[in-house]
Amino acid sequence: MADKNHTDPVRMEKIVSLCKRRGFIFQAAEIYGGLNGCWDYGPLGAELKRNLKDYWWRKTVQERDDVVGMDGSILTHNSVLVSSGHVGGFSDPMCDCLLTKERLRADQVPAQSGVGFFFTGANKKDGTWSSDKEYSVLVPSEKDADKARKTAATYYAQLAGKSVSHKEMELIGERTETISDSTSYNPANGSLLTEAREFNLMFKTTIGATSDENDPNSIGWLRPETAQSIFCQYKNISDSSRVKLPFGIAQIGKSFRNEINPRNFTFRSREFEQMEVEYFCRPEQGLQLVEDWLEARLSFYEEVGVPREKIHILDVPDGERAFYSKKTYDLEYEFPFGIQELEGIAYRTDYDLTVHQTGSGKPLEYFDEETREKFIPHVVEPSAGCDRTVLAIICEAFEEEELVDEKGKKDVRTVLHFSPKVAPIKAAIFPLLKKNDEQVRIARDIQKTLQPWMNVFYDETAAVGRRYRRQDEVGTPFCITVDFETLGENDESLKYTVTIRHRDSMEQERVAIKDILPWLLERIR
Amino acid sequence: MADKNHTDPVRMEKIVSLCKRRGFIFQAAEIYGGLNGCWDYGPLGAELKRNLKDYWWRKTVQERDDVVGMDGSILTHNSVLVSSGHVGGFSDPMCDCLLTKERLRADQVPAQSGVGFFFTGANKKDGTWSSDKEYSVLVPSEKDADKARKTAATYYAQLAGKSVSHKEMELIGERTETISDSTSYNPANGSLLTEAREFNLMFKTTIGATSDENDPNSIGWLRPETAQSIFCQYKNISDSSRVKLPFGIAQIGKSFRNEINPRNFTFRSREFEQMEVEYFCRPEQGLQLVEDWLEARLSFYEEVGVPREKIHILDVPDGERAFYSKKTYDLEYEFPFGIQELEGIAYRTDYDLTVHQTGSGKPLEYFDEETREKFIPHVVEPSAGCDRTVLAIICEAFEEEELVDEKGKKDVRTVLHFSPKVAPIKAAIFPLLKKNDEQVRIARDIQKTLQPWMNVFYDETAAVGRRYRRQDEVGTPFCITVDFETLGENDESLKYTVTIRHRDSMEQERVAIKDILPWLLERIR
Repeated sequence: MADKNHTDPVRMEKIVSLCKRRGFIFQAAEIYGGLNGCWDYGPLGAELKRNLKDYWWRKTVQERDDVVGMDGSILTHNSVLVSSGHVGGFSDPMCDCLLTKERLRADQVPAQSGVGFFFTGANKKDGTWSSDKEYSVLVPSEKDADKARKTAATYYAQLAGKSVSHKEMELIGERTETISDSTSYNPANGSLLTEAREFNLMFKTTIGATSDENDPNSIGWLRPETAQSIFCQYKNISDSSRVKLPFGIAQIGKSFRNEINPRNFTFRSREFEQMEVEYFCRPEQGLQLVEDWLEARLSFYEEVGVPREKIHILDVPDGERAFYSKKTYDLEYEFPFGIQELEGIAYRTDYDLTVHQTGSGKPLEYFDEETREKFIPHVVEPSAGCDRTVLAIICEAFEEEELVDEKGKKDVRTVLHFSPKVAPIKAAIFPLLKKNDEQVRIARDIQKTLQPWMNVFYDETAAVGRRYRRQDEVGTPFCITVDFETLGENDESLKYTVTIRHRDSMEQERVAIKDILPWLLERIR
Repeated sequence: MADKNHTDPVRMEKIVSLCKRRGFIFQAAEIYGGLNGCWDYGPLGAELKRNLKDYWWRKTVQERDDVVGMDGSILTHNSVLVSSGHVGGFSDPMCDCLLTKERLRADQVPAQSGVGFFFTGANKKDGTWSSDKEYSVLVPSEKDADKARKTAATYYAQLAGKSVSHKEMELIGERTETISDSTSYNPANGSLLTEAREFNLMFKTTIGATSDENDPNSIGWLRPETAQSIFCQYKNISDSSRVKLPFGIAQIGKSFRNEINPRNFTFRSREFEQMEVEYFCRPEQGLQLVEDWLEARLSFYEEVGVPREKIHILDVPDGERAFYSKKTYDLEYEFPFGIQELEGIAYRTDYDLTVHQTGSGKPLEYFDEETREKFIPHVVEPSAGCDRTVLAIICEAFEEEELVDEKGKKDVRTVLHFSPKVAPIKAAIFPLLKKNDEQVRIARDIQKTLQPWMNVFYDETAAVGRRYRRQDEVGTPFCITVDFETLGENDESLKYTVTIRHRDSMEQERVAIKDILPWLLERIR
C-alpha cells in the first residue's frame, strides 16, 4: 500500500484554482464570506456531476434487471434514526476550550507535556473571589509563567464580566505542577479544555407548527445517509415491484453531516451527495455478493476515468468494521492530499431491517415462494460518495503537459483528461473564421443537430489554437472545426466534412458532417 | 377562468392509491406512522421524476446557448437569507389554541359569532385562584354553557397541574357576552386563541461545532428556494463562463418550507424540488422576456403531457404581486383538488442582485462592453415546481377507460397516458410463451440492446393480455412481444420481426428487430 502521507499540496492548489476559474466549483455563499463545508457546483461542475450520476444510474439501475431506484426525502423522522442508532450513537467526543469556546474533537487533541499553572479561585461574587472554579493553563516551562497568567486573567475576566487586573490575579491562588502526556489542554493556547462529551453529527431541525420545540414529535433530522429511507421503504417497494431476492434498491441524493472540521476542498464537506445501493439477499449469498459488487464498482471507476491501479482496496479487518458487518471493503483513491475513501462496500447482514422491524413494529420479513421460508433478508451495501468521485475524476484528469512546438519552443498545456462519458462539454464547435458567414451557418447547424443529444459549446472568438486550449482546460474531448475545406475550397473531396481534433493526442481527422452525431454518440456513451 | 372549487376527490383517491400500489409515491417513514409533508418516490416515481428533470434540463440548459446550469448547496448562510428578506419576512401569522396548543394560520381562522363565556381568575397559587388570566370560550348559544364550562375547566386544570372540579369552577368568575365576527376562537373547540405572531416558514439548524447554539454565526437554514444561491453565484458564474446579457442560470434542486398544513398529496409538501431559471437581462428587455418565457414554458408542459387548455394563465394584478415585481404570471393546472399553481414567471427587476450587493458589500454590477454601461441586471424568473408537475402529469394521464370486447363484454382499463418522453418505462418486452427458449432468448437480447438507451421492463409471467394491462397501469407506451412469427413460423416474411403494441390506441404493428432501437428513440425523446 502506498504512503498515506504522500501529498502534493501544490498540485491540489492548482486544481482548486482551476475549479473556481473555469466554473466547476465555488464556495457556497462566497460573497458573504462563505459557508464552511458547503460547496456550489458552477456550470461545468454541475454538468460533470450530472454525467457521473446519470452514468451510475444507467449502470446500476437501468442496465440491471435486479435493481430498482428510489428517491427519498431528506427530512427524516426521529424514530427512523433512533432505530438505526444514529440518534444515540452517531457522534464524536468533543470538548470545549474554556478560553475561546472553540470546540475540538477530543480524540484529536494531541498529548502534550509541560508545566501546568493552576489557579484556584474564581467567580467574583460580591467583590470577593470564591474558590470553586479551578482553572489551569499548560505552558512549555516555568519561564512562560507570564503567558500562563495572562491567559488565566482573560478567562477570569470573562467570568467576572469585567477586566481582571494583575493585582486581582494575585488573589487567585496559583500553584504549578509538571504535566506529562495530557490531552486536557488546547494546543493552540494552553487553556484547559472541558471534559469530553458526545456531540451528534446530525443536523437537527423542528418540523411542523408546534409551540413546543422540545416536543420529540417535532424533531426532524437531515438524513446522515440515504440508506435509511431505503430500509424504511423496503417493504413498500418489494410489494409494489414484485421483485425477488436477490434484488437491490438504489438511490442518489444529498446527505448531511455536521463535520467538526470540514477539509480537503469538497472531500470532507457538511453537505454531500451519495450514490448508494442496498442489495437484499439470502444470508448465504452475502459474502459472494460483496466480491461481485467490488468487481462491478472497480469497473465503474475505470469507465469514468479513475483507473484500478490508483484505487486501493482496504479489506477492513475484524475489530475495525461496524459490529454487525461480516465483511467490508473500503475503496480509496490517491488524492493529492493523501489516500482517502471513495466508497465502502459493506456486508451489513440483517442488522438494518431487524432494527427497523423492531423499532417500527412492522414485519419486514421476506417470504421465499420457492423454499417456503420467511426470513429477514441480508444486505450488501455499495455506498459511493458522489462529490468525492467528482473530485477524484478531476484530480486524475488534471495535467500540466509540457509541449515543444515545431520551432523547439516550450509551452505548458493545462488539460483535463476526462473520460468522454463524464466530460461536461462533449464537443466544441468552431467556425474557423467568424467573419465567414457560410462557416458560421454550418457550425450553427451542427450545434443545433447535436444539442438534443449532448452538451456542446459554440465558440467563434480568437484563433483556433487558443480555442483548443480553452477546451483542453475544461476537458472537452472533441473540437469540431468548420473550415474552408468544409465549403469545398482547396479540395472538392473534403466538401461537407469537418476537422475533429482529439483532446489527448491533439490529432485531427476529417469526418463527414452527416456522420458527426453517430461518430460522437459512439464515443461519449 | 374555471371554477376553483370544482374538485373530484374520488378521482384523487384513486390516483393516490395507484401511486402507492404501483410504486410511484409513498409517504416518508410510513412504517413509523409517516412524516407529515414529506414523500418518497418509489421505483416508478423516481424514474418519472428523473425523466421530467432531464427533459427540463435538456430544453432549458442543453439546447439553449444562453442558459448555463448550476447546483448549489441546500444549507444556506444566515446572511444570504437576511439580505433576501426571508429571515425577516418569510413568515405566516400564527396563533396557538390555548387548550390544545395546536397552531393555526391566523389568516385562515374563520370569523365566528356566538356567546362568549368569560372566566376571570386562573393560576391557582397557594391554594387560591388569582385573577390575572382571563380565559374565554365561544359557544353557539347560552344553552351550551356546560360545554363552555367543561372546556374552561380543562384549561384551568392544565394550568393548575391537577383536575379542576365543578366546585372550583364556581370560584372562577364567569360572565357572558355576545360575540360577532370574531377570529380569536378555535373553530374546532371554541377555545380562545393566542394573539397572532409571525412564524418563520424556514427550517433552521445549527452548523458547526459551537457550544453556543444561539450564536448567529452558527445559524443555518434549509433553503426555501433554489433562487438565492443563483443570485449569490451570479458573479462567479458570469466571470467564469464569459456569458453576455441576456443569459440565464438554471438550477434543479430541493427546497424546504415548514408548511403549517401540508395537503393535497405531494402538492403542498414541506420538502419539494424546484426547477428554476434566473434570467438576467437589460432593464428594457424584462417585460418582453416574461412573454417569451411564458411561451417556452407552455410548450414545455405540452410536451410532457400537460396540454395548454388545462393550464390557466393568471396575470397577477397590481397589489397582489411582490412589491418589486413589474409583471408576474402564475401558471395553474386543473388538479382534481382544484386549480392550483404549477409555476410562477416573475419579472423581479433588479431587486435580488441589489439586496445582495448591499448585503454582501460585493459589487454585482454588469459591465456592458458594447454600450460601456455598468448596471445591475434585471431578472426574469420562471420557477416551476417539480413535484407539482409530476403530480399534474399523473393526474392528466390517469384514465379509467371503459372497453367493450368483441363479445360485448364491458371492462375497465386503468391507464396512465404518459407522454413517452417522461414515461418511467419506455418499453416492456415479452416472450409470448415463457417456455419457448428461443422466444425468451430473443426477448432477452432485445432487452440488452435497449437497456443502455432507456429504461425497459422484461416480463414473462401471465397471459400477454394481462401483461399489457399491467403496463397500461404504469403508463408504458410500447409493449414488444416476441412471438411465433418472430421465429419464422406461420409466415416467413415476418421472421425477425416483433409485435409492438401501442398503449393508447391498443393497435399493433410489426417492426423488424434491428429497427426497434431507432424506432423507439424516435418516439421517446
